[in-house]
Amino acid sequence: MNIDTEQYQVKQEPFYQPQGNEIALYEAAYQRRLPVMVKGPTGCGKSRFIEYMAWRLGKPLITVACNEDMTASDLVGRYLLDATGTRWLDGPLTVAARIGAICYLDEVVEARQDTTVVIHPLTDHRRSLPLDKKGEVVTAHPDFQLVISYNPGYQSLMKDLKQSTKQRFSALVFDYPPADLETRIVATETGIDPELAAALVKIAAAARNLKGHGLDEGISTRLLVYAANLMDEGIAPREASRMALVDPITDDEDIRSTLHHAIDAVFPSH
Amino acid sequence: MNIDTEQYQVKQEPFYQPQGNEIALYEAAYQRRLPVMVKGPTGCGKSRFIEYMAWRLGKPLITVACNEDMTASDLVGRYLLDATGTRWLDGPLTVAARIGAICYLDEVVEARQDTTVVIHPLTDHRRSLPLDKKGEVVTAHPDFQLVISYNPGYQSLMKDLKQSTKQRFSALVFDYPPADLETRIVATETGIDPELAAALVKIAAAARNLKGHGLDEGISTRLLVYAANLMDEGIAPREASRMALVDPITDDEDIRSTLHHAIDAVFPSH
Amino acid sequence: MNIDTEQYQVKQEPFYQPQGNEIALYEAAYQRRLPVMVKGPTGCGKSRFIEYMAWRLGKPLITVACNEDMTASDLVGRYLLDATGTRWLDGPLTVAARIGAICYLDEVVEARQDTTVVIHPLTDHRRSLPLDKKGEVVTAHPDFQLVISYNPGYQSLMKDLKQSTKQRFSALVFDYPPADLETRIVATETGIDPELAAALVKIAAAARNLKGHGLDEGISTRLLVYAANLMDEGIAPREASRMALVDPITDDEDIRSTLHHAIDAVFPSH
Amino acid sequence: MNIDTEQYQVKQEPFYQPQGNEIALYEAAYQRRLPVMVKGPTGCGKSRFIEYMAWRLGKPLITVACNEDMTASDLVGRYLLDATGTRWLDGPLTVAARIGAICYLDEVVEARQDTTVVIHPLTDHRRSLPLDKKGEVVTAHPDFQLVISYNPGYQSLMKDLKQSTKQRFSALVFDYPPADLETRIVATETGIDPELAAALVKIAAAARNLKGHGLDEGISTRLLVYAANLMDEGIAPREASRMALVDPITDDEDIRSTLHHAIDAVFPSH
Amino acid sequence: MNIDTEQYQVKQEPFYQPQGNEIALYEAAYQRRLPVMVKGPTGCGKSRFIEYMAWRLGKPLITVACNEDMTASDLVGRYLLDATGTRWLDGPLTVAARIGAICYLDEVVEARQDTTVVIHPLTDHRRSLPLDKKGEVVTAHPDFQLVISYNPGYQSLMKDLKQSTKQRFSALVFDYPPADLETRIVATETGIDPELAAALVKIAAAARNLKGHGLDEGISTRLLVYAANLMDEGIAPREASRMALVDPITDDEDIRSTLHHAIDAVFPSH
Amino acid sequence: MNIDTEQYQVKQEPFYQPQGNEIALYEAAYQRRLPVMVKGPTGCGKSRFIEYMAWRLGKPLITVACNEDMTASDLVGRYLLDATGTRWLDGPLTVAARIGAICYLDEVVEARQDTTVVIHPLTDHRRSLPLDKKGEVVTAHPDFQLVISYNPGYQSLMKDLKQSTKQRFSALVFDYPPADLETRIVATETGIDPELAAALVKIAAAARNLKGHGLDEGISTRLLVYAANLMDEGIAPREASRMALVDPITDDEDIRSTLHHAIDAVFPSH
Repeated sequence: MNIDTEQYQVKQEPFYQPQGNEIALYEAAYQRRLPVMVKGPTGCGKSRFIEYMAWRLGKPLITVACNEDMTASDLVGRYLLDATGTRWLDGPLTVAARIGAICYLDEVVEARQDTTVVIHPLTDHRRSLPLDKKGEVVTAHPDFQLVISYNPGYQSLMKDLKQSTKQRFSALVFDYPPADLETRIVATETGIDPELAAALVKIAAAARNLKGHGLDEGISTRLLVYAANLMDEGIAPREASRMALVDPITDDEDIRSTLHHAIDAVFPSH
Repeated sequence: MNIDTEQYQVKQEPFYQPQGNEIALYEAAYQRRLPVMVKGPTGCGKSRFIEYMAWRLGKPLITVACNEDMTASDLVGRYLLDATGTRWLDGPLTVAARIGAICYLDEVVEARQDTTVVIHPLTDHRRSLPLDKKGEVVTAHPDFQLVISYNPGYQSLMKDLKQSTKQRFSALVFDYPPADLETRIVATETGIDPELAAALVKIAAAARNLKGHGLDEGISTRLLVYAANLMDEGIAPREASRMALVDPITDDEDIRSTLHHAIDAVFPSH
Repeated sequence: MNIDTEQYQVKQEPFYQPQGNEIALYEAAYQRRLPVMVKGPTGCGKSRFIEYMAWRLGKPLITVACNEDMTASDLVGRYLLDATGTRWLDGPLTVAARIGAICYLDEVVEARQDTTVVIHPLTDHRRSLPLDKKGEVVTAHPDFQLVISYNPGYQSLMKDLKQSTKQRFSALVFDYPPADLETRIVATETGIDPELAAALVKIAAAARNLKGHGLDEGISTRLLVYAANLMDEGIAPREASRMALVDPITDDEDIRSTLHHAIDAVFPSH
Repeated sequence: MNIDTEQYQVKQEPFYQPQGNEIALYEAAYQRRLPVMVKGPTGCGKSRFIEYMAWRLGKPLITVACNEDMTASDLVGRYLLDATGTRWLDGPLTVAARIGAICYLDEVVEARQDTTVVIHPLTDHRRSLPLDKKGEVVTAHPDFQLVISYNPGYQSLMKDLKQSTKQRFSALVFDYPPADLETRIVATETGIDPELAAALVKIAAAARNLKGHGLDEGISTRLLVYAANLMDEGIAPREASRMALVDPITDDEDIRSTLHHAIDAVFPSH
Repeated sequence: MNIDTEQYQVKQEPFYQPQGNEIALYEAAYQRRLPVMVKGPTGCGKSRFIEYMAWRLGKPLITVACNEDMTASDLVGRYLLDATGTRWLDGPLTVAARIGAICYLDEVVEARQDTTVVIHPLTDHRRSLPLDKKGEVVTAHPDFQLVISYNPGYQSLMKDLKQSTKQRFSALVFDYPPADLETRIVATETGIDPELAAALVKIAAAARNLKGHGLDEGISTRLLVYAANLMDEGIAPREASRMALVDPITDDEDIRSTLHHAIDAVFPSH
Repeated sequence: MNIDTEQYQVKQEPFYQPQGNEIALYEAAYQRRLPVMVKGPTGCGKSRFIEYMAWRLGKPLITVACNEDMTASDLVGRYLLDATGTRWLDGPLTVAARIGAICYLDEVVEARQDTTVVIHPLTDHRRSLPLDKKGEVVTAHPDFQLVISYNPGYQSLMKDLKQSTKQRFSALVFDYPPADLETRIVATETGIDPELAAALVKIAAAARNLKGHGLDEGISTRLLVYAANLMDEGIAPREASRMALVDPITDDEDIRSTLHHAIDAVFPSH
């Protein structure tokens, strides 16, 4: 089977601003091919970081958005019916193991807890993937590495990784960037005035304090970029902030009112 | 694969009366290709607005009525068995990404919460859709935009979008139109006397106050248009109102009686 | 695809006795192609009324008995494997939309709540049915109309139509016929003496008062017709009544005893 | 499709002892083709009665043992893949409707409650069965009749027929035969001494009094026949009774002890 | 279809030590082809007994290990896709009915309660098995007999056979063998010194008293044989006993300590 | 079917340090082909031990990572569609039985409790595996042995092996290695200074005391090896320890703080 490896290469350097020494830590883990777990709230840049590291290391990246309906076959592969009978089609995990890609399982905890056991033999000294249905054992390419993301913020008691899975990973903890860095990110990505960007970051700070007090999650950097985009298109700051920072994340009238006050304080009427 | 793009074009200007500056806000979001969430009660015109915007922007529109049984394959595509083996058939989301349509996922919260993760890579800087089963990564057409609708009124605790999904959208909040605008809509759409239309809008106002006090939702503009249609066919106003405004929405005798009083007050017997 | 429309025509006038002005109301709704919901207890004649209206309007009628296992594909259509590959087979809803039939979804609330969303685009100004799996949008024939039935009597909290579905219908409320009309129906349909028919109707009246007090539903007109049939075959009235009116509907000894008393009072022993 | 009707004919008169006028009542119901529900405890002879009536009326009998996994397709039919594509295979209900058989759905309440709606159009004036997946409406043969069995004894609240199904049937209530009749049945079927048979019937009487007081069901006539068979093979009456009447039906030590006493009283040690 | 009956013959006399008159009782039941239920705790020899009886009677034996995922099709048969279309493949129950085997459904209560109804027509006077999907009614071979096993010890309230199933069987109750018999079994099967075997049986007696007081089941004869095997391989009695009698059956520290004391008392240190 | 046995051979001696006489016990069990259960916490070396024993005994090893979605077919085999019809594909358990491999079912308790019954006939005197769907009974190769792993630490009440399964195994209990042995393992596997390894083992000791007091499991030897790897790549001991020992296993702030103190105590700042 000829796999088009090229399509998995990250061609352009993704815009990434380091928050600490996460790059060195990741590189050390990669040198030893330790599986890596990236933890942190929604929209803080976990996926962007992995994309950046894949670019930096020059390795192909295969991302799988995990979900509750994902079966082991979706990861590993399945038989398809062909004109001449059945034909095996590798799943993304198998492709990654064969070509030596970084395989990034995004929001892995969404997958059925017990289907995650298929990654076990790839995460210990065996570094192999048994394709039971095909009767083949794939030995991982020396460049292969497994990465998973995990948001500790809203995992329920019902959905958590098993210890026997967790204890196969080293972990990098992420959070929202500090205010000055986040301001720089918003301004650089959208082209708005850094002062306006700083104002948006102030609203985010207010919202992030509400986490656990009516908000499940704080406002992500991504939403700040949305608001800045709208403002750059000529929408008034208050309207842009409501549309991007408040209306998508909550229906609670009290929380909305609190957030509206935060917006009005930062963007006074003229 | 030749896709018949033409069938997704909105050929006639849909009848749409703006409630505020939602058209400008949507256009700004579209310029930046921000994903948009439209929120509001049943029958207040969310779908009509998206259809109007697709017509106004001259972009094809692909609407998907989401439901609990919808799998990721229903959105993304699947293999079909053909005379010569299996053949891949793009799902509506994939078609929209290829041809640059506005893809409108109606009542997205009905879909299994975790299947919604398939839209994630289309809603961030990647703007791509991995077809894992086909081994292809679709890069979205520059014109592609994702829109979802959401009714905050009757979402249960069990069914809500995840924050990691919500934080990928900007949002537009809709409500029933103000009385004079709604009167104009009812009269224009059905041809009945504006005074009769105004009377129907009064009944709706009474019912909408009952929301949360025995009614799950107020009477929608759509039902007012139904009542007006029946009156235009010669049905007496009281009968038409009961048939269109009361009988479809409630079996509760107390609520029925309250609504009947409201009808009788607005349409006194001759 | 050639559809045998003829088989859906109601060839003979069904026996139908109007209870009020439901015929005029239905005709007005049909003129405007408003979707119609018929509500009422088991066996009060809802299905018979729709059959009668289809005959009266001269339109084909396609009835679907809904059930919990019914999927959207059962309504809309699916691919079948053929000698030359897969072949699309329209479901009954699609057939009705193509040929301009009245499509009657019986006991629609039995269907999975969320699969009912597939009827939404057929019930608003779009009047279209997207066949996502086929990549085709069916525009409904001008004669097409959607009708659903609904029994408010024993819907549980778990099973109810969503407001976003309900608010797409006008509604006609049915009940058991008044005593003299019901007597006439029983006598006409079975040929028994009107006095015997009147006696059966009296038993039904007693039973219907027990609804909610040990009986989930009253005795339907259909069961009265069964009892009359048995009497017409020579079975003694008391035995016929027990066999048709009591034994099928309850296992509760108290209720049975009450109903036996009602029977004995109406048909005294000789 | 050529259906081998012959295999459904009951060739030999089944051994059946009437308990009352159930034969006349059934014949009247059959004349009018009323659907019939037979109710009664396990092993009291319901299935035997239907077999007897089919023999007496000279009609083919198709029996379906219902179960929770039975789908509508199991009753109605499905497409099978053939060398030349798909081929429709009628289910047992469809076969019965075509050839004019008595279709006996045994323990119908075991079937998924809502799949039972497929029998509705066969049980009212329509007497038809829509094969939605085939696009065909089968009109029932004039001889066709539907019969269901139902055991009111151990139906849970979760599993009951819906009123809209119940109200489509006339009903015949069965119970264990009176002592002298049951003695005659046991003696005739097995060839043991009527006195021994009478002793077994006495044990059954004791057990049936325990129903609801530790036993879910009384001892059936069938088990009495088993015990008589074992005795006829030379097994001692006490041992035969324990093996056939006690050990299969209960693990409760108190109940077992009570039943052993009843056995010892009836079959004193020599 | 040619069935290889030979493979179902029990070729060698299984080692079986009778506990009572179970052989005579079984033979009487077989003469009348009464269905038989064998009841008793795990590992007390139920399956061995049936194997022995099949050998003694010279009948083929088909054993099915029942489980929760077993469908009626797994028992009865299904269509397979072949080069020339679909081909029916008999399930083990159907094979047994055709060739006249003893069909032994092991741990039948594990099967979905309601799939067990497929065995009903084979267990009454009909002795037939309708293959609904094939449109064939299989009449059982005169030698066919149905046997089920059942462990009353740990059946939950959720999982029990229905009375309508239980009342189709005669029953044989098994328990652990008496001490001297069990000692003989252990010594004969493994070749160890009868004194050592007797010591193992003493440990089992202690453990069986803990049933219901921290142990779900006592130690089975099979585990005693395991311990004896390990001792015969040179493992010290205490170690062998812990490995075979304690570690497999409990994680509870108190129970383990109690069992260790019992072992130490029986095998004192030297 | 030609099975590539070679791929299941363990080619290189796995690094294994015995904790006690487990090697002798396993060899005795293997001589008698007793099924073996290996019990112990996550990452204590159970899988490594089995791999070592397979190498030592020179037998092929087939490992199956069990999971909740694993069906009996995944273990036993299934039909695949081929150009010439269906073709049977042995599952890993069947392959192991045919070629005489050690079949290791890892985390067997994850599999659906009742699918585990398919292993029963392989674990008693029969040593056979009925392939019901194929109509074949596989007699196990004389070298075949079944091994399962089991972690008593976090089994819920809902998920436990049935006694009728447990009582088919002898058991070997594992725990974390004693401190000096674990230090040697960490140093040997990674090449770091034994003093640093000893420090890591001290942190693990602290964490293992927290098991049941906020931690579901202690820190495994595997994670110590990860930390040592990172240190060997030049990461500071404190950072390496947090990344490998704390961040993967807990989100609880109190526990994290306790573990951070343990790390700081062992690796004081310079």
